[in-house]
Amino acid sequence: MSTRRLKVVLDKDTTYDIRVGNRLLTNLGVHLREATDATKAVLITDSNVGPLYLEKARAGLSKAGFEVFDLVVSAGEESKDIAVAAELWDALAMLGIGRDGMIVGLGGGVVGDLAGFVASTYMRGIECALVPTSLLAMVDASIGGKTAVNLSSGKNLVGTFKQPIYVAADLETLRTLPAAEWENGFAEVAKSALLDGTDFYQWLIDNTGALLAHDEAAAQQAIVQSLTFKARVVAHDVKEKGERECLNYGHTFAHALEAASKYRIPHGRAVAEGMRFAARLATEAADSPETFGEAQDVLIDALGLKPVAETFSADELYEWMFADKKVRNSELRFVFVSAPGKWETVAVDPDLVKIYLILWEQARM
Amino acid sequence: MSTRRLKVVLDKDTTYDIRVGNRLLTNLGVHLREATDATKAVLITDSNVGPLYLEKARAGLSKAGFEVFDLVVSAGEESKDIAVAAELWDALAMLGIGRDGMIVGLGGGVVGDLAGFVASTYMRGIECALVPTSLLAMVDASIGGKTAVNLSSGKNLVGTFKQPIYVAADLETLRTLPAAEWENGFAEVAKSALLDGTDFYQWLIDNTGALLAHDEAAAQQAIVQSLTFKARVVAHDVKEKGERECLNYGHTFAHALEAASKYRIPHGRAVAEGMRFAARLATEAADSPETFGEAQDVLIDALGLKPVAETFSADELYEWMFADKKVRNSELRFVFVSAPGKWETVAVDPDLVKIYLILWEQARM
Repeated sequence: MSTRRLKVVLDKDTTYDIRVGNRLLTNLGVHLREATDATKAVLITDSNVGPLYLEKARAGLSKAGFEVFDLVVSAGEESKDIAVAAELWDALAMLGIGRDGMIVGLGGGVVGDLAGFVASTYMRGIECALVPTSLLAMVDASIGGKTAVNLSSGKNLVGTFKQPIYVAADLETLRTLPAAEWENGFAEVAKSALLDGTDFYQWLIDNTGALLAHDEAAAQQAIVQSLTFKARVVAHDVKEKGERECLNYGHTFAHALEAASKYRIPHGRAVAEGMRFAARLATEAADSPETFGEAQDVLIDALGLKPVAETFSADELYEWMFADKKVRNSELRFVFVSAPGKWETVAVDPDLVKIYLILWEQARM
Repeated sequence: MSTRRLKVVLDKDTTYDIRVGNRLLTNLGVHLREATDATKAVLITDSNVGPLYLEKARAGLSKAGFEVFDLVVSAGEESKDIAVAAELWDALAMLGIGRDGMIVGLGGGVVGDLAGFVASTYMRGIECALVPTSLLAMVDASIGGKTAVNLSSGKNLVGTFKQPIYVAADLETLRTLPAAEWENGFAEVAKSALLDGTDFYQWLIDNTGALLAHDEAAAQQAIVQSLTFKARVVAHDVKEKGERECLNYGHTFAHALEAASKYRIPHGRAVAEGMRFAARLATEAADSPETFGEAQDVLIDALGLKPVAETFSADELYEWMFADKKVRNSELRFVFVSAPGKWETVAVDPDLVKIYLILWEQARM
């Protein structure tokens, strides 16, 4: 399989390459040499990914002449915390890392968010490269420049915008990806295809089987198409003020569902459910045809993303939506899709949302 | 006295006003209305400044229609800490501040650095205005966009670049400024004049008496000239990669002196001593004439910045220079001035630095 290379161009000073293919860990140092003058590379990874891929990444960086260090955090969302960021800052200082140093985030979304945040704030910002090792991180977290840690009062409340200097999506790392993690990635791919338009959407319909079988060529194509779409959106709206809003498709409901379930429901499953919910609501709150929601269900089902079986009361979900709103302080806004590639954001009457939440709850009784 | 207004232009998307004059706290809301669409203003101040100026700032903001909140931290460098930043982030979330919110840092350098850091990282960045209340903060911390908190392993190791949307230097706040704080400001003004050139330098020589008497018109002029100089430097070099290096004049030695004294020696006194040291070293390490160092001594003396009387061993200072270097990982670089407005950066042979440290130590025996 040949490696694909995408060039992300955000402005004249901010461009970087993303490679999607094989042997990218082995060649990590060679490719980073083209992107940076840094001489020291600090790998940040977690206790799941470290044992699998840290040595290969270290070797790839050393071979190209980098002085390599590594910092391993506990696997899991709990590491996306300011106390862990503080430990990493201290460790960087102890290692004597200066502006000649670069961070390399090796792992899934948590590692990418944390490594990016630490890189963007250590000494007012040092360079950061990302090596996403989950499908979701490859298609989502590795692009857009959003970094974050959680507060007890809410997820992702602290963070920065930090563009990486290079992203390497090595498909080999997907071979060890748990099934639940594939689902998270598929939901993001489906969302991208629905927002992007007919070509990607049709391709995805034709390739759900290959993706479910974890076919590497299909995964590569899904990643490249998702990244191409997202790079275009982000380039138009680096600081998240307009077009980028479309990426929240399914997320208004998904955030409430995740919070109500105390994050037991995985993000991908929640987003898939959120897209289903938005399509229903859009038939009344916007001009979406019912046939679109049905077609979307077929696609989501075909990717193995089953409807959420657990139920939560409409009241509880409604409250979570407003809890989320409180800190975001936007209106209760939804992204609606009426056909592949056609989307709009709509401020919806809370009473109407409540009715659809009740319908959602009743369908589960 | 009329208020002076400077326009800082960093790039086409980043411009902001600085006002230097009277009644700026009272008019804070009116002026901020021109700069922002935010509806909520969160004043961050400390336990020294709060009792003096918080009510006036609150009133000025309320009158202009802002919903006003305030968060007060303990006065002192100890508040420039990640634990304090975390408390502020949590407080912002609890107050329901979203992207409709703005931070207003009311205080000296510590408050400005902390408020700027919190603003730049809360929800990936909300707007920040600064109301510096010390001479040093007016001429230094309010421009350049550098924010920071300290780590146990070093000062200012965590931070961001964050440009304010507005800066109000209300001269009235200087009436309560302690003498030691005036000294800190004078050192920064002297540094700016020496780097800027003949006009500012000559003006400063002619006005040391007025400044020592805390004459408001003289203070205003000193602030405006320092800001004009610094705005020019920063505009050429927003991310601190070249020209901005000149602002480190006196700082290589000053940082070692501050660290060796466990920060008992105030920053201004340390920088003044650092400029004296650099001028001596420059007669051998560069082409600076001895007469420049002597003229500089006269100016620094006239501003009441006495030579540091305490002594520290050359060995200890040397080690601190390298401790600083270790994390910065630059060479042992000095900014040298050979005449007002003429400066260069030079990597100096550590052995030569050592000799001048020994001379410095011996002069104190």
